[in-house]
Amino acid sequence: MNRHTSHGYEASSHAYPYPLIIKQLLNRAKSVSLDQEIFYADKARFTYREFLVRIQRFANVLTNLGLKRGDVVAVMDWDSHRYLEAYFAIPMLGLILQTVNIRLSPDKILYTLNHAKPKAILLNSEFMPMIGNHIHDVPSVEKIIWLDDHATPAPDFTVGEYEELLSKANDSFDFPDFDENTIATTFYTSGTTGDPKGVFFSHRQIVLHAMGVAMGASLNPDEVGLRYSDVYMPITPMFHVNGWGIPYVATMIGLKQIYPSRYVPSLLVDLVFKHKVTFTHCVPTILQMMLKEAGERGVQFDGLKMIIGGSRLTEGLAKSALASGIEVYTAYGMSETCPVITVATFDTKEPLTLENSLATRISTGSPTPLVDLQIWDEHGQPMPQDGKTVGEVVVRAPWLTQSYFKNTDAGDALWAGGYLHTQDIAHLSSQGVLQVTDRLKDVIKSGGEWVSSLEIETILSLHPSVADIAVIGVPDDKWGERPIALVVKKTNHDDTTPNDILALAVQAYEREIIPKYGIPNELRFVADIPKTSVGKHDKKVIRTLVAEGKL
Amino acid sequence: MNRHTSHGYEASSHAYPYPLIIKQLLNRAKSVSLDQEIFYADKARFTYREFLVRIQRFANVLTNLGLKRGDVVAVMDWDSHRYLEAYFAIPMLGLILQTVNIRLSPDKILYTLNHAKPKAILLNSEFMPMIGNHIHDVPSVEKIIWLDDHATPAPDFTVGEYEELLSKANDSFDFPDFDENTIATTFYTSGTTGDPKGVFFSHRQIVLHAMGVAMGASLNPDEVGLRYSDVYMPITPMFHVNGWGIPYVATMIGLKQIYPSRYVPSLLVDLVFKHKVTFTHCVPTILQMMLKEAGERGVQFDGLKMIIGGSRLTEGLAKSALASGIEVYTAYGMSETCPVITVATFDTKEPLTLENSLATRISTGSPTPLVDLQIWDEHGQPMPQDGKTVGEVVVRAPWLTQSYFKNTDAGDALWAGGYLHTQDIAHLSSQGVLQVTDRLKDVIKSGGEWVSSLEIETILSLHPSVADIAVIGVPDDKWGERPIALVVKKTNHDDTTPNDILALAVQAYEREIIPKYGIPNELRFVADIPKTSVGKHDKKVIRTLVAEGKL
Repeated sequence: MNRHTSHGYEASSHAYPYPLIIKQLLNRAKSVSLDQEIFYADKARFTYREFLVRIQRFANVLTNLGLKRGDVVAVMDWDSHRYLEAYFAIPMLGLILQTVNIRLSPDKILYTLNHAKPKAILLNSEFMPMIGNHIHDVPSVEKIIWLDDHATPAPDFTVGEYEELLSKANDSFDFPDFDENTIATTFYTSGTTGDPKGVFFSHRQIVLHAMGVAMGASLNPDEVGLRYSDVYMPITPMFHVNGWGIPYVATMIGLKQIYPSRYVPSLLVDLVFKHKVTFTHCVPTILQMMLKEAGERGVQFDGLKMIIGGSRLTEGLAKSALASGIEVYTAYGMSETCPVITVATFDTKEPLTLENSLATRISTGSPTPLVDLQIWDEHGQPMPQDGKTVGEVVVRAPWLTQSYFKNTDAGDALWAGGYLHTQDIAHLSSQGVLQVTDRLKDVIKSGGEWVSSLEIETILSLHPSVADIAVIGVPDDKWGERPIALVVKKTNHDDTTPNDILALAVQAYEREIIPKYGIPNELRFVADIPKTSVGKHDKKVIRTLVAEGKL
Repeated sequence: MNRHTSHGYEASSHAYPYPLIIKQLLNRAKSVSLDQEIFYADKARFTYREFLVRIQRFANVLTNLGLKRGDVVAVMDWDSHRYLEAYFAIPMLGLILQTVNIRLSPDKILYTLNHAKPKAILLNSEFMPMIGNHIHDVPSVEKIIWLDDHATPAPDFTVGEYEELLSKANDSFDFPDFDENTIATTFYTSGTTGDPKGVFFSHRQIVLHAMGVAMGASLNPDEVGLRYSDVYMPITPMFHVNGWGIPYVATMIGLKQIYPSRYVPSLLVDLVFKHKVTFTHCVPTILQMMLKEAGERGVQFDGLKMIIGGSRLTEGLAKSALASGIEVYTAYGMSETCPVITVATFDTKEPLTLENSLATRISTGSPTPLVDLQIWDEHGQPMPQDGKTVGEVVVRAPWLTQSYFKNTDAGDALWAGGYLHTQDIAHLSSQGVLQVTDRLKDVIKSGGEWVSSLEIETILSLHPSVADIAVIGVPDDKWGERPIALVVKKTNHDDTTPNDILALAVQAYEREIIPKYGIPNELRFVADIPKTSVGKHDKKVIRTLVAEGKL
């Protein structure tokens, strides 16, 4: 990081070929943000000047452990300054950062570790109850670095505690240049079907994604756009697709940053107010938790800009957020796409109002610059951009996983026809506004036409008796598949009949909102609807139970 | 451009490696901006849908002329839709676009053509008086395409008129993928010393520059920042370093665009009002012309955002522009740097006022993301970031010319020590704000210290008798060099003596604004100060004349 040691004036006089590697993301901050701050919740504060020294110390620690280019280093931590340092120091050494998906069950976490085979792991002491007794079941792990916020002594099986190791290390390290196509990070998706699959990204892809997201978000007006003046705090876990890549964006710009540790709603809201956080991103569930917390305190957010991803931002939630002073809008992508490929695009010159902005906020956004996004039918034919004809979202962008980690068969399916298949069903308007309507595997194929289960669910959920609803396709000799609806009724709504609720679908058909074959054949009342570990309807399990006559 | 022919669903199932080539800049516009408009002054209007077809037609024209990958195609035109089409179709075929510097003298234009050796040239009929009789002195040129807005018949030595050729060509062309390091464009700098030198940029560099500029400009607040809602018109000639690269940015985002033809102040102002132009860029001279035109009409601009480059934006001009409703600010770079490497950075959350924004607007800006910008002394040692210690600006960025076209010796000097040498003298503040104070060749070295001739000129120009002033260094046995000042007095200021004016430098020294050795040894009154063809002081000529006792 010393500006001069490796490029002495007297040395080479050749043009610098400028590889797109992660260390280049620090160039602006090195001159602009040396005195800017990075906070770890209420626990620690560093300037960028210190951060730049700390990643050099960390690099010396890792090098002294004998790690070599191409080795995998896993991290299990809450969102912290340590994680940010790992985002930079590990790949800047040519090592591969595995951000461990700590939301998985312990056996699946072990599966991902034994699949990626890290040589070293950074382990937060708070994960000892979950994984500690099994860490020796991952034979590839030779070195464990202890991360701790509670003065818990580093156990003997570790090489020591992170801060202590850093304090003893040399503070100067000259990060090398290397091929920009070197793999930088890997992350395992939750894998609702089968084992978790690892996506992976090169240095070049991470740099280009940072540039793409920065453009996509900052071309928007002040109410929602990313700015040089922002204070940034992620509320998407840093293990999850590089925290959507925004920590890299924030560091590239040189913003003040806050890392909130474990997500506790009261602490999150505290941090937003204490540090005057202006830019964040999360899933709808976290937004709901924050709104609840703020509501209980009787406080308003002051124009906090928030990108929502992961699940659909509903109109109701968007309105609640806006009423609480949060400027919400959607970005879209998935683990395989690094992830951002669309951002809601506000192309008005007028101040944003509920009337002129709500539809844009809750749309699935528009392709960011450089993203080639299309809607294909099952034969790979592009669909008309009419805002209603649905097909699968396929995409090319400079930052998409090129396969699955050590699983090329699944990678070939992902890239069928040379475009990455999202398995999301959507339509695209003539102005390029995307609207995802369903997951491909949840779509019902009736009479050769696609029926969106999500759309039918939305319509039927408007009935006041519906507490929860799932629509699935069941085999049908004549039509291929036919939709049926499973409904959990609210208490004290015993009098409601299936036909009372199905009447909404009939009305929607009569108003030409859905096709006739979108009206479910049947509506069953059930006690509960099976869900995945992250709280989504588990349609695979639902379909199995229905087929077995158990639901 | 057909979305499907080359990537059929049944064909390959390999990950798309996504080369950073110019055709990718069209991806967003292809879905978002098909109905958006591109205007050629008051002469023509096209939608992006038409533009996308026209570049396919143009590609067929060029291919049918027998041009092959690596061939150079030169363009001599005013800013037009044709030039924009050339920006895309020519490099997208793997050809090299030479944007001919029409501000050079005819013999220098011929020099650049005979150096770059284009196989074909697009020639606007209005340049016939300047170059027409000599075009046969460029033996490499085999095909001439006639550009014309006056129904002048295409001469026999051409292959036909552009619009006619397009109308007869097939409207479908499948642009190939190729190595992103393929050279896309070349342009010859004016070369105040010696022959013009050609800079050149690869596809990758042009794409990355577009991303870098888009980020750098859009992270700023609404008053000055680039937005999805902008209407764009360049007022920097498209031959000049790709019109600063912003036509590529505007097309990448999919903005409404206006190309103003030859720069006539009244027409420029007409177009701004007619099309509600919101974003532009130019040199100070053009800004002055527009302010004069608007002043004569008694009209105000309505927040027109304008990036100033090429020469220093003075405080006086910035204030005049702001008073006329133009939101001016600086970006910095040069032909060799593609060009943008800094943009004025507004990191306030408050609305911009004269008080809180003027200093930022007229600074030389801050490095855009990814730009590694340093200030070096003559031994290649980085200078402290204290906002006052000056040195040469050296830079690394993903978009810098890697040498000069067919002139590698000059390229080696440009890249001495592995950083591109701008030959600009500047200081950098602790917040990364750059201030260029001088050109290296204009700096005076007195007693081992650098004296900024520009700074002394600024101070002495505050005297009411000064109409024009140049400060140069003359050899001095004791000090190496000593500054002397040459002043053109205003009429009716005959009584002013040299010491009256020099007193301002003495005052500046007493107030510690300049060092003592910054006070010129001598001040001479002269009738005129020699200038270059673009109106800058020609210090090389001035030094020669002074040395010969002729000034």
